Amino acid sequence: MVSFTCDYTEGAHPRILERLLETNLDQQPGYGEDVFCESARQKIRLAAECPGADVFFLVGGTQTNATVIDALLQRHEGVVAVETGHIAVHESGAVEASGHKVITLPPHEGKMQASNLKALLQRFHADPTKDHMVWPGMVYISYPTEAGTLYSKQELSDIQAICQEYEIPLFVDGARLGYGLMSPAADLTLPELARLCDVFYIGGTKVGALCGEAVVFPRGNAPRHFFTLVKQHGALLAKGRLLGIQFDTLFTDGLYFQISRHALEMAARLKDLFLRKGIPLSVDSPTNQQFPILTPAQMQALDGKVLFEVWDTLPDGRAVTRFATSWATTEQQIDLLAALL
Amino acid sequence: MVSFTCDYTEGAHPRILERLLETNLDQQPGYGEDVFCESARQKIRLAAECPGADVFFLVGGTQTNATVIDALLQRHEGVVAVETGHIAVHESGAVEASGHKVITLPPHEGKMQASNLKALLQRFHADPTKDHMVWPGMVYISYPTEAGTLYSKQELSDIQAICQEYEIPLFVDGARLGYGLMSPAADLTLPELARLCDVFYIGGTKVGALCGEAVVFPRGNAPRHFFTLVKQHGALLAKGRLLGIQFDTLFTDGLYFQISRHALEMAARLKDLFLRKGIPLSVDSPTNQQFPILTPAQMQALDGKVLFEVWDTLPDGRAVTRFATSWATTEQQIDLLAALL
Amino acid sequence: MVSFTCDYTEGAHPRILERLLETNLDQQPGYGEDVFCESARQKIRLAAECPGADVFFLVGGTQTNATVIDALLQRHEGVVAVETGHIAVHESGAVEASGHKVITLPPHEGKMQASNLKALLQRFHADPTKDHMVWPGMVYISYPTEAGTLYSKQELSDIQAICQEYEIPLFVDGARLGYGLMSPAADLTLPELARLCDVFYIGGTKVGALCGEAVVFPRGNAPRHFFTLVKQHGALLAKGRLLGIQFDTLFTDGLYFQISRHALEMAARLKDLFLRKGIPLSVDSPTNQQFPILTPAQMQALDGKVLFEVWDTLPDGRAVTRFATSWATTEQQIDLLAALL
Amino acid sequence: MVSFTCDYTEGAHPRILERLLETNLDQQPGYGEDVFCESARQKIRLAAECPGADVFFLVGGTQTNATVIDALLQRHEGVVAVETGHIAVHESGAVEASGHKVITLPPHEGKMQASNLKALLQRFHADPTKDHMVWPGMVYISYPTEAGTLYSKQELSDIQAICQEYEIPLFVDGARLGYGLMSPAADLTLPELARLCDVFYIGGTKVGALCGEAVVFPRGNAPRHFFTLVKQHGALLAKGRLLGIQFDTLFTDGLYFQISRHALEMAARLKDLFLRKGIPLSVDSPTNQQFPILTPAQMQALDGKVLFEVWDTLPDGRAVTRFATSWATTEQQIDLLAALL
Repeated sequence: MVSFTCDYTEGAHPRILERLLETNLDQQPGYGEDVFCESARQKIRLAAECPGADVFFLVGGTQTNATVIDALLQRHEGVVAVETGHIAVHESGAVEASGHKVITLPPHEGKMQASNLKALLQRFHADPTKDHMVWPGMVYISYPTEAGTLYSKQELSDIQAICQEYEIPLFVDGARLGYGLMSPAADLTLPELARLCDVFYIGGTKVGALCGEAVVFPRGNAPRHFFTLVKQHGALLAKGRLLGIQFDTLFTDGLYFQISRHALEMAARLKDLFLRKGIPLSVDSPTNQQFPILTPAQMQALDGKVLFEVWDTLPDGRAVTRFATSWATTEQQIDLLAALL
Repeated sequence: MVSFTCDYTEGAHPRILERLLETNLDQQPGYGEDVFCESARQKIRLAAECPGADVFFLVGGTQTNATVIDALLQRHEGVVAVETGHIAVHESGAVEASGHKVITLPPHEGKMQASNLKALLQRFHADPTKDHMVWPGMVYISYPTEAGTLYSKQELSDIQAICQEYEIPLFVDGARLGYGLMSPAADLTLPELARLCDVFYIGGTKVGALCGEAVVFPRGNAPRHFFTLVKQHGALLAKGRLLGIQFDTLFTDGLYFQISRHALEMAARLKDLFLRKGIPLSVDSPTNQQFPILTPAQMQALDGKVLFEVWDTLPDGRAVTRFATSWATTEQQIDLLAALL
Repeated sequence: MVSFTCDYTEGAHPRILERLLETNLDQQPGYGEDVFCESARQKIRLAAECPGADVFFLVGGTQTNATVIDALLQRHEGVVAVETGHIAVHESGAVEASGHKVITLPPHEGKMQASNLKALLQRFHADPTKDHMVWPGMVYISYPTEAGTLYSKQELSDIQAICQEYEIPLFVDGARLGYGLMSPAADLTLPELARLCDVFYIGGTKVGALCGEAVVFPRGNAPRHFFTLVKQHGALLAKGRLLGIQFDTLFTDGLYFQISRHALEMAARLKDLFLRKGIPLSVDSPTNQQFPILTPAQMQALDGKVLFEVWDTLPDGRAVTRFATSWATTEQQIDLLAALL
Repeated sequence: MVSFTCDYTEGAHPRILERLLETNLDQQPGYGEDVFCESARQKIRLAAECPGADVFFLVGGTQTNATVIDALLQRHEGVVAVETGHIAVHESGAVEASGHKVITLPPHEGKMQASNLKALLQRFHADPTKDHMVWPGMVYISYPTEAGTLYSKQELSDIQAICQEYEIPLFVDGARLGYGLMSPAADLTLPELARLCDVFYIGGTKVGALCGEAVVFPRGNAPRHFFTLVKQHGALLAKGRLLGIQFDTLFTDGLYFQISRHALEMAARLKDLFLRKGIPLSVDSPTNQQFPILTPAQMQALDGKVLFEVWDTLPDGRAVTRFATSWATTEQQIDLLAALL
């Protein structure tokens, strides 16, 4: 049985495990004050070319989104996101649980359109009843998006410009950041991303780590007492070293980007395979997630041999599916899939 | 430099790392539905002699406390704890952040006294204004306590009886559970503990794991939709295997208890050492934390060579300190300390 | 200057003020335990033909919505409403502030369509990832709606049937209830409404009272400890008599319905006037709110003489406006308006 | 039957009702933008000698406390109060429901002692683990206290000085403010109180109004968007005129202070009566609440004729009771009580 269901079906990249073994007996303080976290912070600042950045390591994506959003918003404010945004759909209301509304815009291929954002903010600020409403207090986007698509540098700049005009911060959820930045379709580098937003996170869980997300405030602009808020949100790891060692390894010799490129190459092979077999793609994704539309016969051919996710069933019986690749995906696995389709 | 500052200064017990390596390429579903979590659940049910238990794996202690308490309380209720309880002091208000008051009682050697609990509940229910107050909706205790002390079977039974009389659940925070159960001073077994409360957790982070706490509802009495609440609290790990593998290893061949016994033996040596040197102990702790009262001269002798925590400074200049042991503590480390004191 | 801006521009119906004067020196207990509240409860039970109803008096609409919704939902649940619902737009996020998501459906003339609700619930329960989402835990509708429209008995029954199928409660916001029930377009009576939902409130503020909303759980189905939740939400009035006296008066000799009928007659005159003058209506509202589309010239003619609300400006420069009537609206006021248009 | 149970057993001072009648047909905008609110604001600024003050009118005490505290605290902060403070005991956890801890100090005759506050803040800021704790972010005191006692100008200045040293705001709950300021035992004026804190409220409900509390930020220092927070907390009254008219009347010709003095005179008579009859007082209260300790025989003598509150029962069978006076208390009522004791 081979699984393409997601990019977190295996453990961690072997170099991470090696490093966990090597450092296991080093005695270090907890809560992110260890030498590994400090080293990882420094490497991330270098990679993102933001020497004054504040960097925090949290454990998972939902808690990271909830903590960052809660830290940046005032009580009367909500966060603007597209309807398909992770925080709006698949986080069990973690943002609302900390008291804030998710204000939604319709997505375009999974992306927020600057024009929609601008219209929302204009309409809000022109509304004489706005003091009876939830104020749009920040913007949340995912890079890559939940649909596997990418913002261009121009699109991101446009969104940033609007945020700056309205003086609200822009937060980029980078749970799969590497699969965006390393995509041949990307026209953005990590330093550029860092300049184009107020806070972003570098996803570890889905890019080769056992767990962990690195939150970066590029201009040293973390809210005061962010550490205490991380603790309050239950997102502070006692053995912070586990996160420090992983991110230190991922940002040594470009491993994070190497993992991302590998997964993207495997995804390109998947896409080739689907197109060769005449299988249409629901979205033209340049990232590590591919969304082929399979017939019942194709799905039956894979049954019991290849695992993947079913996202939607079409009226004609076909299914929109998701195949994801990771550091662990091999050519052999794709060949096996090819042989079955 | 040797550190006794806490029981999470090193990585994980070597057998855990080995097992992470061995299983690294197994493809498994996320969010705790992997075979390792399932195996670990089964082993915990056996060890605690509660075959119908619901078992969930969360990442850290604060998030576990906040999630369990939020899941068990109704909106008009608070949780009763001693003033020194972890949730009342060192979790940055995570319980209040989810809307609930921590109702405190004075501790007696770190423990809640059944008589105080009873008096609180009697007084509350006799108060004609109680509908204008926060209802005591559950009881939280730590085993061992934050002061390193232990409830006897009788003390725990007394507290449980009161909880049953008032129909409120009893939650035992077992962040350091093994160091309690394996203590020579303990008269409780794990199955007995499971029978004496409504929910407890088995701490992994402080007993040999990289991270992880196993929440056990011994009689299959988890609240409905607890999984979704775990997600909402940001406490659901995508690669749940990381927690499953660790707890499966800890509950294979009694490793969890073996680790605990080792740490307790090392703590007993520490205690002997302090007493031999005429150093008084602030609390007579039978667990893996020792609280010697050191003179400035003694502290200076250790300066730069041995690390420990300072809990309080006395008017005469001496300091109440904490020395903790773990699976990784060695006799050599204690000999080094002995040579310096 | 005459104002049609809303139905709360004046004080209270004179009979309410008289009754406040008459009862002023009666010594009564606080918090709704006075004889006036008890009498009002009894009269509401009679009027709604639900003798076992639980009735609570709260002060205002936003607090009533937030309290009822918070009381009925579990932590993992959200409330379903249309995008134009008051709780989704004009309550500054009070629902989210108590931790719950407002799950929105597109409105049809301001109303929720049963088919949309059914599709949402079906899709949710068929979604394999639903445990990572917010559960739809209750349904909120307004009668009349924010657009001044009315659900028919059939429409309400259809929504109720879906709620019963999915075992989630139906809550009717009746901030302007009288203006719906007494409308010639209504095919619902108060007892029918009470049978067709699980909880509703009878709006006082906008129907002749100084303040106050009566929450009715028609089958004695108030959540346990609802009183304490009302207190926690800051919605419990110390001098509960103020609410009791008002609702007792409103439900004596049918005053509530008489006030409603008067406002509706005045609104019908307004509608006639607009249609006679060739002024189109943005919605065909059978209730006390009318939404004429005025030209700039018409608006200028009224400037400084008649007040009303501007809801939207059309591309051609015309404005969608709102004119509301109440117990205090007079024929003279409408004649004045007629003379100006 | 005569009742001394509280200071909100009657309706409103007659002048308030007269003014409600007189103004009933004036058409005014809602939400506090009416001419009465504006006039009341101006009169309060004059009375408190703070011409730049921001003044908001809310409906009740619990919602006022919860809203002000939520507005002033950051998410990682809690509010410091004495254990007997209203927010710590009798508001059903409204402060915690908005996410904040109430950090308590032991009361001394119902009052917070500056030395205790100082010690708490010093200890907190010296604690190396403070980032894992709830930060003390503001101070809440009541004037008069829940025990009917008063802070002297010196005591209040001392607390303010500590707040200023630690840069946290001081909030004074003045639910019964008049009964404090007008007491012969008071050495504070309203302008002095306004200078000695960062925000306070002038209680209307318990001092002659039907409802209403005036929140005053003396130096125009209301948090931005406080209006929206009031709305979010369900504390914004649609017919804000009801609050405006009442406070405008209370602050016309010193009615607020006249009401307070009358109640204090009646309370002084009560105190005289108790002392004359040899009835001990549990606290020596210089305000409108008296706390006589009655024997069972005395309580029986009053049974069915005079109502009062029982606060506590002593081991010897006697009861600590509360008798409160208000604008409506008469000499006849006290004579009746005298005749029975």
